[in-house]
Amino acid sequence: MGQQAHFITFATRDLDAARAFYIDGLGWHPLLDVPDEIVFFQIAPGLVLGLFESAKFASDLGIPVDETNVSGSTIAHNVGSPDEVRLITEAMAGAGGTTLVAPSPGAFGGIFHAIVRDPNGIVWEIAHNPGWSIAADGSVTFG
Amino acid sequence: MGQQAHFITFATRDLDAARAFYIDGLGWHPLLDVPDEIVFFQIAPGLVLGLFESAKFASDLGIPVDETNVSGSTIAHNVGSPDEVRLITEAMAGAGGTTLVAPSPGAFGGIFHAIVRDPNGIVWEIAHNPGWSIAADGSVTFG
Repeated sequence: MGQQAHFITFATRDLDAARAFYIDGLGWHPLLDVPDEIVFFQIAPGLVLGLFESAKFASDLGIPVDETNVSGSTIAHNVGSPDEVRLITEAMAGAGGTTLVAPSPGAFGGIFHAIVRDPNGIVWEIAHNPGWSIAADGSVTFG
Repeated sequence: MGQQAHFITFATRDLDAARAFYIDGLGWHPLLDVPDEIVFFQIAPGLVLGLFESAKFASDLGIPVDETNVSGSTIAHNVGSPDEVRLITEAMAGAGGTTLVAPSPGAFGGIFHAIVRDPNGIVWEIAHNPGWSIAADGSVTFG
């Protein structure tokens, strides 16, 4: 199996709340938006984020819908400075997110970060990580 | 906030089981492996998957460790044919995965897929999706 992911999908209780947060609040552009079903956003080269209505997500996996609460995962967005961490955290709170960890130094590697939960429980880390970089070919290095 | 993710992280109860599955079983190469803490794999241009020991994940988020079971999310790997879906599903089962949905037609868009859970509960969809493609610049289209 190749070392490659193409979609990341989260069960989503309220697609309208997701649209209000990501599209209206943060200004993102959906790749495809299927009412009452799923909203897709491209979030890296070749990678799509899917926000999939919880009952349909559960049906697809053959699990009970009450097991679709998002937990045990985070998705991170890296920026160039601690000030950008503060600005984006404010923007996410303004768009309807809940700040779980205010902008502050993290435990590892000189990171400065904040942690914000979206209206459906998806947890974003907004981080300035001075030891991390992406080369022109897309390869990631940790300093 | 830019429409971009840089890390996807999952709480991971058993890092040794994760290493046995992804490294020994599937032949993946870690970007960084910190004993008792976290294993990183690059899984798309500019994107890193982090498998983060559950207690440390919980501490980082300020949640109880019993809320770190992975649920409500999937991560997908697309391939070129239904036969590749079958072969990779067998390889994942051979590496210690649990097949939740055997290779079969999916509900949407002509997809042929299987769903396999890794030893820590992370759910992978292995899919042949004839309407999906990645252009040379990394942009994704749905047919």
